[in-house]
Amino acid sequence: MKWEVRISYKKGVLDSEGESTLSGLKTLGFNNVDNVKAAKVYLIEGNLTRRDVEEMCERLLANPVSQDYSISEVK
Amino acid sequence: MKWEVRISYKKGVLDSEGESTLSGLKTLGFNNVDNVKAAKVYLIEGNLTRRDVEEMCERLLANPVSQDYSISEVK
Repeated sequence: MKWEVRISYKKGVLDSEGESTLSGLKTLGFNNVDNVKAAKVYLIEGNLTRRDVEEMCERLLANPVSQDYSISEVK
Repeated sequence: MKWEVRISYKKGVLDSEGESTLSGLKTLGFNNVDNVKAAKVYLIEGNLTRRDVEEMCERLLANPVSQDYSISEVK
């Protein structure tokens, strides 16, 4: 089975990578960019249930204080 | 308009974050994990065409030597 985990920042938490990317794009002249958000994706393969992947998020992949995660199966 | 850019490693390039995540998961006892790949996602909002976003990938977001990018519009 193949799972996709997406880790993003919770609302209200500073997404410093998104902010610095926005600033870099503007410096390069992309003046029409309004907002950039950064997220991390992990593609995880193995004989794993959704519950296993949730546990991976809770124990290693996501910071419960500042990050949200979402899990989807890749067909 | 809102665009999603996904940056991943080209085939044959070492995905060190994927490898270290795999190793960390095994250390935590997730022995059924076979493979982990890491990727980066940017959600970019603004009055931008697909060509603008391609140019952003080529000039800032992706390393053309080691990374691939894919772009999709978020509805």
